[in-house]
Amino acid sequence: MNNTLMIDFYEFTMAQTYFDKNEENKKVYFDIFYRKNPFNGGYAVSGGLDNIIDYINNFKISDKDIEYLRSFNKFSDSFLKYLKNLKFTGDIYAVKDGTVIFPNEPVITVRANIIEAQLIETALLASFNHGTLVTTAAKRIVNAAKEVPVMEFGARRARGIDSAIDVSKYSYVGGCTSTSNTIAGIKYNIPLSGTMAHSMICDADSEYKAFLNYAKSNPDNCIFLVDTFDTLKSGVPNAIKVANDYLLPNGYKFKGIRIDSGDLAYLSKESRKMLDDAGFNDTKICLSNGLDENIINSLKEQGACFDLLGVGDNISASKERVGGVYKLVAIEENNQIIPKIKISNDSIKTINPGFKKVYRFYDKDTNYALGDVIVLHDETILDKEYTLFSPICEWKKTTLKNFYVRELQEPIFINGKQVYEISSVNDRREYCCNEFNTIYPEIKRLNNPHEYYVDLSQKLYDLKNKMINDIKIKKLVR
Amino acid sequence: MNNTLMIDFYEFTMAQTYFDKNEENKKVYFDIFYRKNPFNGGYAVSGGLDNIIDYINNFKISDKDIEYLRSFNKFSDSFLKYLKNLKFTGDIYAVKDGTVIFPNEPVITVRANIIEAQLIETALLASFNHGTLVTTAAKRIVNAAKEVPVMEFGARRARGIDSAIDVSKYSYVGGCTSTSNTIAGIKYNIPLSGTMAHSMICDADSEYKAFLNYAKSNPDNCIFLVDTFDTLKSGVPNAIKVANDYLLPNGYKFKGIRIDSGDLAYLSKESRKMLDDAGFNDTKICLSNGLDENIINSLKEQGACFDLLGVGDNISASKERVGGVYKLVAIEENNQIIPKIKISNDSIKTINPGFKKVYRFYDKDTNYALGDVIVLHDETILDKEYTLFSPICEWKKTTLKNFYVRELQEPIFINGKQVYEISSVNDRREYCCNEFNTIYPEIKRLNNPHEYYVDLSQKLYDLKNKMINDIKIKKLVR
Repeated sequence: MNNTLMIDFYEFTMAQTYFDKNEENKKVYFDIFYRKNPFNGGYAVSGGLDNIIDYINNFKISDKDIEYLRSFNKFSDSFLKYLKNLKFTGDIYAVKDGTVIFPNEPVITVRANIIEAQLIETALLASFNHGTLVTTAAKRIVNAAKEVPVMEFGARRARGIDSAIDVSKYSYVGGCTSTSNTIAGIKYNIPLSGTMAHSMICDADSEYKAFLNYAKSNPDNCIFLVDTFDTLKSGVPNAIKVANDYLLPNGYKFKGIRIDSGDLAYLSKESRKMLDDAGFNDTKICLSNGLDENIINSLKEQGACFDLLGVGDNISASKERVGGVYKLVAIEENNQIIPKIKISNDSIKTINPGFKKVYRFYDKDTNYALGDVIVLHDETILDKEYTLFSPICEWKKTTLKNFYVRELQEPIFINGKQVYEISSVNDRREYCCNEFNTIYPEIKRLNNPHEYYVDLSQKLYDLKNKMINDIKIKKLVR
Repeated sequence: MNNTLMIDFYEFTMAQTYFDKNEENKKVYFDIFYRKNPFNGGYAVSGGLDNIIDYINNFKISDKDIEYLRSFNKFSDSFLKYLKNLKFTGDIYAVKDGTVIFPNEPVITVRANIIEAQLIETALLASFNHGTLVTTAAKRIVNAAKEVPVMEFGARRARGIDSAIDVSKYSYVGGCTSTSNTIAGIKYNIPLSGTMAHSMICDADSEYKAFLNYAKSNPDNCIFLVDTFDTLKSGVPNAIKVANDYLLPNGYKFKGIRIDSGDLAYLSKESRKMLDDAGFNDTKICLSNGLDENIINSLKEQGACFDLLGVGDNISASKERVGGVYKLVAIEENNQIIPKIKISNDSIKTINPGFKKVYRFYDKDTNYALGDVIVLHDETILDKEYTLFSPICEWKKTTLKNFYVRELQEPIFINGKQVYEISSVNDRREYCCNEFNTIYPEIKRLNNPHEYYVDLSQKLYDLKNKMINDIKIKKLVR
């Protein structure tokens, strides 16, 4: 089934209005951005662009869809005929998946005929919000785990089957080293991993026999799950016994154990001692059970012994949200770009008007990102002295000197044609890792992260203030 | 693309072990249940069975999948050949979607050959967890809204496109009256609804003109979004003016306004006065903006005026989880059912062993549910005196007299053949509503809900205790 009709119904009723006014070719600009970092963190990592590209390329309202829309008796025949032939013919600019992003920056910008721009809103937002949430969640966990590999085990807690497949993909881009989800492995060439389930141990006559049977069938990859009955009294001793009874005599390594319940700090340290005492210094300890970045951090602080982590829920069923929104920022009239604004009682919700670009400033010596500046599309920032100022506290200024800049958004579609080739998930993962390394640790820390500078150019700042002041006169008084 | 390989990879490595031991035809029993009510509530509402049925019916490991698995050099040729022809040939018993469920009850029970039972685990859990989460979230919100219809607006915040479609379906089953997501409307025959977006007002020369244009194209369904600039000074006056200038003179009704920001309690009361003063007593007020059951409750307490609610995030991007698990509870040996148990340091995680059924007791006079009892499969509860007792505090006993019972699980698959016809989403919605009405309000209240009785039969209780005591002897000492 084609998913084109993943469209909020009001887009159609609004589109009918535009169509009735013969505005279907009116060009408009929409930005996707978010307002608040998830996880009370200092950043997010973008995701979902690949699914957006798929949606746009497959956009097709079928005959059946048209008949369904006709059944509401709301839409004119000419409008339905227009919808039937509709393709996305506009432009999309976006940051690459895996880019570190910050509140209020345009991450994705759509320039298109107004009806096309409205109809793609719902799918774009759902894709961006999910992709960014998962990539961010994974990156935070991977960052806390530092050099310890994080295996993504989240499929069973994901929000449905398709959602689980996306979770595997975006968490891999975010830095996980593997997934448990076989279909994601085959679809995206992501390494697979897994150990064993408690059911296997419960099913067998004894824990020892379960380990032994598993070892015989999977001698190259024995990570025994040791917490089914009692980690230290039963699980670890049985694992060691199977290693000595079967693995070593047959020339195999005792790869590891997994602890999935109990006090992971204590049990991992005690298990490490037992393994070391038995001569298995290279045998790895894998921990799992509701891990997130804070628990991992705490385990490290407590000196827990682990070489591998399995994380499920907190990647695939994160309790956070990325509240991405899609806001009109400009229209074209007589080939002029007219900026638009939505003000709000809540000043955080007042948008940045106009067709814009985002520049990221990097220190020439360290390659650390120094801050971002949102500018109007016809502004250019050269690699010379530049004064940043806070759009909230104008007096807070910083003059940058030894820097280079990069424009964050790239053209993805121009005139409806895809001009950007999405790279493999492996390349996206590497890109994401490199991007993340350009961000100061202070921005990335778990508690009270430093706020990254996202400033406006003087021109954009002045425009925004003028529009806020003008709006009362133009809009409120009829 | 067929989603059969939505399978955690360790299921395959474990399956290889079972296959090597020639155990592929060994019958095992798995239960799906959850341990803690989401939302700190007193209940959950089951969902996801429809997707589980689809998954089972389409289960097929393709040639391409087999070649992929072969590439790991982990699996034997004979095992891969076995997988290639694999179908689900077992039995599945489950409660219908829309049933009110409680912790530790077997919601879904699988009896199947061990490899088949393991391979379907991941998809079953993801479907159950998502379906139950959304149905529960929706039901809680709908219950707080009481007679006020709740429109589901969550697509843009869902965890991807397919997840959004499921959200629409399960939230409708949970009692929402409509969805904004057009594809869910066409797919499941769910009523669609929506109003207008801020972009439409920003795009127009003025708020008044935006409302007027919309009214001309959609005269039958005018719910004006009034909070773009200033709800009381601009939005409501402009809406009233368009109603007087265009809707009424042309014979149309002024259907409503929507307020999507600001202090909804205050703005709704003031808007109500303004509408009433202008003679629009029947014009409805729709509220939206991050609503959940607690906010809706608070709005009611404050005397907010509303006739319609739009809820998005808290249905489609709920911050809660249903931690459904899939646990081995029995195996068959020599045509005998041998119960299995997993104990845990954490007593809440010790499972109920054996092939079981759940009976719900209803008061004959009021039809309220009095409690559930989990029994072994060969036990029957007749409609006569029955003494419930708490499995945690054995001395807590209640003797029921004037009751009738219902078995909650129904056969869904028998020998791999579907024997249960899933009903329409409308029928499921009605069933869910009726089920919900049998639950005491004390169980359903938002704060400190009363704990519903889920007790064990004496036979099951005794079995469980005996097994816990035995396990130390049988399992820990080799």
